[in-house]
Amino acid sequence: MLEGPLKYELLHKDKHSNARRGRIYTPNGIIETPVFMPVGTNGTVKALKNSDLKDIEAEIILGNAFHLFLRPGLEVLKNAGGLHKFMNWDRPILTDSGGFQVFSLRDRKISDEGVLFRSPLDGSKIMMTPELSMEIQMTIGSNIAMAFDECVEAGAERKYVEESVDRTFEWAKRSYKAHTKKDQALFGIVQGGFHEDLRDRSLKQITSIDFDGFALGGLSVGEHYSETERILKHSGPKLPEDKPRYIMGIGTPLIILMSVENGMDMFDCVLPTRMGRHGTAMTWEGKVNLKAGKWKYSTEPIDNKCDCYACQNHTRGYIHHLIRKDEILGKILLSIHNLRFLINFVKEVRKAIEEDRFLEFKEEFLSNPNNVY
Amino acid sequence: MLEGPLKYELLHKDKHSNARRGRIYTPNGIIETPVFMPVGTNGTVKALKNSDLKDIEAEIILGNAFHLFLRPGLEVLKNAGGLHKFMNWDRPILTDSGGFQVFSLRDRKISDEGVLFRSPLDGSKIMMTPELSMEIQMTIGSNIAMAFDECVEAGAERKYVEESVDRTFEWAKRSYKAHTKKDQALFGIVQGGFHEDLRDRSLKQITSIDFDGFALGGLSVGEHYSETERILKHSGPKLPEDKPRYIMGIGTPLIILMSVENGMDMFDCVLPTRMGRHGTAMTWEGKVNLKAGKWKYSTEPIDNKCDCYACQNHTRGYIHHLIRKDEILGKILLSIHNLRFLINFVKEVRKAIEEDRFLEFKEEFLSNPNNVY
Repeated sequence: MLEGPLKYELLHKDKHSNARRGRIYTPNGIIETPVFMPVGTNGTVKALKNSDLKDIEAEIILGNAFHLFLRPGLEVLKNAGGLHKFMNWDRPILTDSGGFQVFSLRDRKISDEGVLFRSPLDGSKIMMTPELSMEIQMTIGSNIAMAFDECVEAGAERKYVEESVDRTFEWAKRSYKAHTKKDQALFGIVQGGFHEDLRDRSLKQITSIDFDGFALGGLSVGEHYSETERILKHSGPKLPEDKPRYIMGIGTPLIILMSVENGMDMFDCVLPTRMGRHGTAMTWEGKVNLKAGKWKYSTEPIDNKCDCYACQNHTRGYIHHLIRKDEILGKILLSIHNLRFLINFVKEVRKAIEEDRFLEFKEEFLSNPNNVY
Repeated sequence: MLEGPLKYELLHKDKHSNARRGRIYTPNGIIETPVFMPVGTNGTVKALKNSDLKDIEAEIILGNAFHLFLRPGLEVLKNAGGLHKFMNWDRPILTDSGGFQVFSLRDRKISDEGVLFRSPLDGSKIMMTPELSMEIQMTIGSNIAMAFDECVEAGAERKYVEESVDRTFEWAKRSYKAHTKKDQALFGIVQGGFHEDLRDRSLKQITSIDFDGFALGGLSVGEHYSETERILKHSGPKLPEDKPRYIMGIGTPLIILMSVENGMDMFDCVLPTRMGRHGTAMTWEGKVNLKAGKWKYSTEPIDNKCDCYACQNHTRGYIHHLIRKDEILGKILLSIHNLRFLINFVKEVRKAIEEDRFLEFKEEFLSNPNNVY
C-alpha cells in the first residue's frame, strides 16, 4: 500500500553509467521511469483526446499552474473538484509552478516577495508568490506539485544568477511551508544557470528541504545542448538517490539520453506536439519534415517501426496532404505519432538499462547523425 | 449480390407524408436512408480520425472533386489507388462534382464548354468541363459521382436561370457520356433556382437520363428556409421513386425534416463541423453556444441524450474552457458531437418513418422553438 502522496522505487542501476530504472507510485497509478511526460498546459495535451493519450500509453501528463490559474481559474477548478475531474483524466498529473511562464512575460517585476505581472487576460496586476503557486497547485490537485522558483534567462550575469539561486531557496522554503496537501507530492527545483558552483550551491540548499523529489530547472532556455550536458554531468548524479529526479522542459531524444545517462528519471517537453502541429515527425531515423514536396507520393508510413494510430493507418503522402491543407487531422496524427515515438523511445531506454546496455543503446541510436538533435 | 455500382431499395413509405425509409447498397457497404453524410472536402472530415467516424457510425462521407483535383491532385490519387486508399476509408464515399466550388470563385468565366478559372494555388488557368469533372471523380474512385452542373446564385435573374438550366442539361448529357467507370454510380442534379416551372423543366431534362440517382441542387445558397421548403414540396415527390434522392448542402434538423417529408433520402452539410469548430453544439433542445460565459461552471454534458465520446466523457464547462483557449480538442469534441447528433437525429427519423409517425416526430421536435433553425 502507498503511504503518502508518492513513493519512488529504484529497480536497477545500469552497470556502466548513472542511468537508473525505477518506479513511482501515486494514488492515481504507477509511473515507470525513465518516463516522458506529455505536456497539457491548459488541461489538454494539444490535439489529443484522453482516449488517444491512453492508446499511446501516456503514464502521466503535465498541467501548468500559471495558465490554469488564468483560465479556467481557481473557482472553476474548485467547482469541478480539481483538474483530474475537470478534464476527466484519472492517471497522474504533475503541475509546473508557473515560475517559467511568469518569467517569460515581458512586463514583470521580481522582488523577494514574488513576481508582479499583468494578467495577459485583462491587464490586472497579479503578484505570484510561492504561497499563491501552492494554493493554485493544491486547488488543481495534481499528484506532483513543483516549488515556485526563479528560472533565469540564458546568458544572465553571474551576479544575478547568484542572487536568484538564493531567492529560489527562500521561495522553496516558503513553498514547502505553504504546501499542506497531504496527498500531493512536492518537488524542489535546483537552479544555478550554467555555473557549476552555483548549481552546487542551489543543490545543497534545495536538497536540504524534505521534498518528495527534485528537479533541475533552467536547462531548457535555448543554450546549446553541450551546455545542458555539462550541467547534467555535474549535477545529475549529485541529486538524492532515493527520490525521483526530473529535468524540466527537455524532450529531444539526444537530451533525454544525456539526462538518463546522468541519473535523471523524468522529462517533459512541448516539442513533440509543437513539432507535430507544424508538420515534423520524430522517427527512429531522425526528424522528417512531412511538409516537404518529396513525400507527396509516398505510400510508406511515417515510421516503419512505430505502432501508433497514424503509422498503422496512414501514409506519409496522406499526412503531407493534410499538413499542406492545414487540416486539423494532420496535427492530430503527428501529435499522436511524436508522443508515441518518445514513449516508445523511453521504453527502449528502460529495457536497455535493465540489461546494462544503456551506453550501447545510446551509441547505436546516436550513430545515425539524424538522431542528434 | 449487388450488380453494378449501386442499388436502392425502398423499405417503407410513411402513411401520412412522402417520407420514405430505404437502403442503398454499394460495393463498400450499405447505407440506411434517410442518411446524413459528413463532409470531408479535402479527404478528411475536419478534426475527426477515421476511427472517430466509425465510432459515430458515419455510413458514407463526402469528398470534393474540385478541392481534391487541386490538392493532392490526380497523379497522387492515381498513385494511391483512389481516395478510399489514400485516406484509408473503406466505407462509401460520394463526391461532389466541383461545380458549386468553381462557381463560388470570383474570377471565373462560364461558357457552354465549361468554366474557366484561375487555380487558387498557382494562378494557372483551368477549364473545368463535365469531362474533366468525370475524369477527376473516376480517378478519385468514389462510390457515387455527381454530374457537373451549374449552381446559380441566390437572386439570379430568371432569364439567366433559364439558360443555366439548359446548360446544366447539356452538361449532364456530357457527364453521362464521359462517365465510363462501371463500379461507380453517377447521379444527375436538378437545378432551376427558386422557380417552380424551371425546376420542372430541369427535372424533366435530368431524369430523362439514366442516372443512378438524382439530386436537388442550388437549394443551399443562402435563401430563407421557407424558399427551400417551397421548392422541396414542389420537386421532391416528382423525383423517380426507384432511385436515391439527394438534396445537396443542407444540414440543419429543420431542413432535414422538410426534405424527408418531401421524399428526400440523402443530405450533407459542413454546418455541424463548422459550427463545432466555432464552439456551437447541436442538441435535442436547439443550438448551444458553448463559448458563452454561462457554461463556465457547468458540470453537465453537452446533451444528456447523447452517446458520443464528448458527452460520455466531458462537461460543458470543460469544453467551454477548451473553446475559450482555442484548443484543438474543443474543435474535435464538438465536431464529433455535432455529427453524432445529426446521425442519431436521422436514426430517430428512420424509426419514426418505419412506424408511420414521421409527422408526429417532426411536430414534436419542432414544438421546441430552439430547434427551428
